[in-house]
Amino acid sequence: MVAPEVRAAARREHVLAVAAEVFSEKGYRATSMHDLAHAADMRKPTIYHYFASKEELLIRLYETVMDSSVQSAQLISSSDLAPLDILRELVVHRIVYTCEHRDLLRIFFEEEAELPREHAQRLVERRREYEEIFVRVVKDALAAGARPLPTSPKLYVYSLLGASNWVYKWYDQAGPKTPVEIANEMADVLLSPLVGQNA
Amino acid sequence: MVAPEVRAAARREHVLAVAAEVFSEKGYRATSMHDLAHAADMRKPTIYHYFASKEELLIRLYETVMDSSVQSAQLISSSDLAPLDILRELVVHRIVYTCEHRDLLRIFFEEEAELPREHAQRLVERRREYEEIFVRVVKDALAAGARPLPTSPKLYVYSLLGASNWVYKWYDQAGPKTPVEIANEMADVLLSPLVGQNA
Repeated sequence: MVAPEVRAAARREHVLAVAAEVFSEKGYRATSMHDLAHAADMRKPTIYHYFASKEELLIRLYETVMDSSVQSAQLISSSDLAPLDILRELVVHRIVYTCEHRDLLRIFFEEEAELPREHAQRLVERRREYEEIFVRVVKDALAAGARPLPTSPKLYVYSLLGASNWVYKWYDQAGPKTPVEIANEMADVLLSPLVGQNA
Repeated sequence: MVAPEVRAAARREHVLAVAAEVFSEKGYRATSMHDLAHAADMRKPTIYHYFASKEELLIRLYETVMDSSVQSAQLISSSDLAPLDILRELVVHRIVYTCEHRDLLRIFFEEEAELPREHAQRLVERRREYEEIFVRVVKDALAAGARPLPTSPKLYVYSLLGASNWVYKWYDQAGPKTPVEIANEMADVLLSPLVGQNA
């Protein structure tokens, strides 16, 4: 028998996954709790039992992305690898995650104006925290002898992350390359300024 | 005295510029024709005189971006410069345009689901046309002896354009660098795989 708290957690996860899908397809504003209940194959009161409002669902989806992003980046950047290898891991992880969570990231990148003010503010802070991890690793790589950049570490990181985030716009599951292949090839391209070779 | 057709054209432009600003700030769906009339300091019937609906405004904004993008790219790519210099021009132009039309590009990148089907289809075709110009120039550069890429020209172009498009997310008019400075530094970064040097 499944313990009630395990079942409750699984249901919450299910509702969140369905919300990611439906918000991404219809847009947050155009989606009703009725739509979500229908897509989740649940009754509306059941959904309200887990989430007080549509807004709470949106907030939790944003937290899911930020928590996962910051935690992974912290974990990767605390490894013993050389800074350039850490940077490569960070980029590869970002791109694979993006391919595998396209719906979630579409919401994350396009519905920010719908977040309540204090959550929007918190999002800005956590995004800065995430970017700072990249900037620190780039500075470490430069200090360890990587080829000097033609721009600031910050603008370089914005270029890296821009190219990586944009993947949510064009990634096609039916395409010829796997997420890992795409991520590795793009990492070669994006790390080229620091490396000097297409290795 | 201003000719009536000149005044009409100026008014249409004014309404489009206001629509870009208001849609970008409030979101397309949350914006009413009343909001637009208020922001444009016009009466609602005046706006309806120029545009049949809110949807028509959205369609025209998409056309504005696509026409301008494809035309500029065609012009730049038909010059006598070396392929690498053409590619650099294409990237620089894209980034400067993005900095200077942030509102318009926020709509362009985030409201696609609101376009009527036949316009969405047309948009996909024109975007492909735009990307194809970049891919062709990259192939020309490779044929002219640029350093071989670690990926396909297409995935490289997606990386270039992703980093360039993403600028609409973070560009800050009050920041320390001008659009041209940002564009040139990012072009150095993004062309690095083909050039091999940070020159």
